[in-house]
Amino acid sequence: MVDVSSLIAALPDKTVVTDPDILAAYRQDRAADPTAGTPLALVRAQSTADVQTAVRWCAEHAVPIITRGAGTSLSGGATAVDGALMITTEKMRGVTIDTATRTAVCAPGMFNAEVKAAAAEHGLWYPPDPSSFEICTIGGNAATNAGGLCCVKYGVTVDYVLGLEVVLADGRAVRLGGKQLKDTAGLSLTRLFVGSEGLLGIITEVTVRLLPAQNAACTVVGIFPTVHDASKAVLAVTSQTRPAMLEFMDQTTIGAVEDMLAMGLDRTAGAMLIAQSDAPGPAGMAEIALIEQAFRDNRADEVFTTDDPDDGEAFTAARRAAIPAVERHGSLLLEDVGVPLPALPDLVDGVAAIAAAHDVTIAVIAHAGDGNTHPLIVFDPTDDDEARRAQSAFDEVMGLAVQMGGTITGEHGVGRLKKGWLPAQLGDDVMELTATIKNALDPQGLFNPGVLL
Amino acid sequence: MVDVSSLIAALPDKTVVTDPDILAAYRQDRAADPTAGTPLALVRAQSTADVQTAVRWCAEHAVPIITRGAGTSLSGGATAVDGALMITTEKMRGVTIDTATRTAVCAPGMFNAEVKAAAAEHGLWYPPDPSSFEICTIGGNAATNAGGLCCVKYGVTVDYVLGLEVVLADGRAVRLGGKQLKDTAGLSLTRLFVGSEGLLGIITEVTVRLLPAQNAACTVVGIFPTVHDASKAVLAVTSQTRPAMLEFMDQTTIGAVEDMLAMGLDRTAGAMLIAQSDAPGPAGMAEIALIEQAFRDNRADEVFTTDDPDDGEAFTAARRAAIPAVERHGSLLLEDVGVPLPALPDLVDGVAAIAAAHDVTIAVIAHAGDGNTHPLIVFDPTDDDEARRAQSAFDEVMGLAVQMGGTITGEHGVGRLKKGWLPAQLGDDVMELTATIKNALDPQGLFNPGVLL
Repeated sequence: MVDVSSLIAALPDKTVVTDPDILAAYRQDRAADPTAGTPLALVRAQSTADVQTAVRWCAEHAVPIITRGAGTSLSGGATAVDGALMITTEKMRGVTIDTATRTAVCAPGMFNAEVKAAAAEHGLWYPPDPSSFEICTIGGNAATNAGGLCCVKYGVTVDYVLGLEVVLADGRAVRLGGKQLKDTAGLSLTRLFVGSEGLLGIITEVTVRLLPAQNAACTVVGIFPTVHDASKAVLAVTSQTRPAMLEFMDQTTIGAVEDMLAMGLDRTAGAMLIAQSDAPGPAGMAEIALIEQAFRDNRADEVFTTDDPDDGEAFTAARRAAIPAVERHGSLLLEDVGVPLPALPDLVDGVAAIAAAHDVTIAVIAHAGDGNTHPLIVFDPTDDDEARRAQSAFDEVMGLAVQMGGTITGEHGVGRLKKGWLPAQLGDDVMELTATIKNALDPQGLFNPGVLL
Repeated sequence: MVDVSSLIAALPDKTVVTDPDILAAYRQDRAADPTAGTPLALVRAQSTADVQTAVRWCAEHAVPIITRGAGTSLSGGATAVDGALMITTEKMRGVTIDTATRTAVCAPGMFNAEVKAAAAEHGLWYPPDPSSFEICTIGGNAATNAGGLCCVKYGVTVDYVLGLEVVLADGRAVRLGGKQLKDTAGLSLTRLFVGSEGLLGIITEVTVRLLPAQNAACTVVGIFPTVHDASKAVLAVTSQTRPAMLEFMDQTTIGAVEDMLAMGLDRTAGAMLIAQSDAPGPAGMAEIALIEQAFRDNRADEVFTTDDPDDGEAFTAARRAAIPAVERHGSLLLEDVGVPLPALPDLVDGVAAIAAAHDVTIAVIAHAGDGNTHPLIVFDPTDDDEARRAQSAFDEVMGLAVQMGGTITGEHGVGRLKKGWLPAQLGDDVMELTATIKNALDPQGLFNPGVLL
């Protein structure tokens, strides 16, 4: 065991935590990996300088580094490794809105919701909206290239990050990009670090571009007899327009959400779609009419439209509550597979077939408009056989997505839980290219070992 | 001199060109660098396999490689180096539109305008629009992260590239990304290669996302007494809305364009702004009213609004014609500096001061809405003293932009002509990081030597 006394001495008082009870709380992230290790210590960095000191100490002592934001990773990206130093950026706080350049400069520990709120005070909007937006940090969002519900129209985190401050493996801090909307000077290093899952450096500041405040959205809810009908309706919508939101929940999910929220959802429905249009005036009305028609053309039993923001938010909140709601029924293996849109109905059918073949429950929610689905495999962890069947189903769903030309992760990242399937998607040459860049930037291999590679 | 007979033998008939007259035509790109070298030979690749064969041959014989699209680089990114093999992808042609995923898979030699036209046949739109869109290739657009007039609202090339095929330094071809809108599996290699200016590999296929066809745009033209007033008007617009276009021309440029096009522009105007709104219906009308008011509030002498697409296109075409029009009056040193928007009036004033101090003409055009300006330094190349003064002004403009927290290149790339100023912008640490990645991916340093580093 490496002696951390020199690290404690090098950092401000109480920055380094070695209390086993506190460390235990940081071992796992939201993916709750039972194989999580125990960190050597935890650094609660309050500044870029703290992060640099910690990284330099790790480089000197060959200690691996796990960076953690709020620990909301669903793929084990922030799971502790035995003997690693865990560096959390959750105490690095603050956001500055620049209305003239329409940008926000964010400390990494700011919650996504706080960035949104700060922007909203100035009539501006930060679109990316992972379902965990109230409890996930902007630093983690950048490190994983997080997505959300708005992506179908507004893109993902990388589409908003203009600049970063990053601490490199030798402890140097570099500034990449800035507030310019257009800046092509040098390699696209800013974008390389977005989504790098802690492998290349530690993000200590994030500059994001903001949009003018979103128009009030109108919401259309469709109730369908089968998941197949609902996924066909998705294609009917997206082939004609680009809605601001297009979310999918299957019967299992609807039931689980209704159990938790008791909001009067139809438990007999095979699937539900929630679409929004934020196009202004007549264009929005035309888009809503088009969505309603696409739903009806694909055998919707019921189509409900509201321009009441509270009603719309209630349905969106129901969708966001899906993962915790389903989790009440067992442990989860959380998929994040995406396919090119035309393959969505086949993917949904294929997931159902995999569930049947392995006799496990798979609840399906999806950011359907961009082909990104979250099959949630529900299992009893005390039942070894069921746990094994769940794991087999987990594997097969990723295999199915890759076979369809899709991705094993649309927005959660590969982390530790999905890295086994990454070579099947990327191929050996791209894996080698990935390793080449990793080795060049982190020759000691200290940043987030066990993730991706 | 390396013997190219083995390369000629390895590639299809007539793929390798050694005719000195033809080689001479490929020595320079649009930047017309007088120091351009003479290539060993030219490979007119017709396929990815041709590119691979050529790259493998170069790796074996330690021959540098210059990749060229249409040769429209304004910063010398495709200038020949003595003894290098020039590989042009201009013969790699073809585009496939996938309406279901709203993507286009493009061979690198397709012109930007051809990709736009193919998309338009399906009611879709590829937004990035460099002024050279009719004669520049999509492969070159990806390699330089090209911009254009629409970027203020719609972003730059990297915002549209979902997937690439790239030939690496050892001749392997890899596929990065694909048709998924959301795909965060592995490092962001696709985005790293966009804007890499030929340093990391050769782009042999580009998959871009498309948007629904743009709404008909309404155009507002404002005539201002001074460049300062016009640039203040820009801020007044962008602080309130995000127009689809917001372009700037100064008096020198207006005169040059009028000389060429004789379209009745006001030669006495200090500056002209051309703005467009593509917001639909009443939202568009409100945006147009806001732009008109912002122009008037900032001392516009005249404000002219048209919803006639041909009239709007005439003004846009005038703006696109600016560089060739100014070029009739002398040789050009072409700037591409960008600043955070609030600094735009000071940048414009600073450029005027630099022009006065060095007694040179600097015509200024700008994608003003995103702070990206093109001061065009006009000089007589046969007048050594004026050429020296022009070069000094060229340097000082970049220094001024960097000092204001801006960039030496918003959309043209660093190429060979601006690399001297890159360290001032990025700093030594980021330059070293850039070199680390370059060396890791191209250890022999064969790809586009002399660019960036």
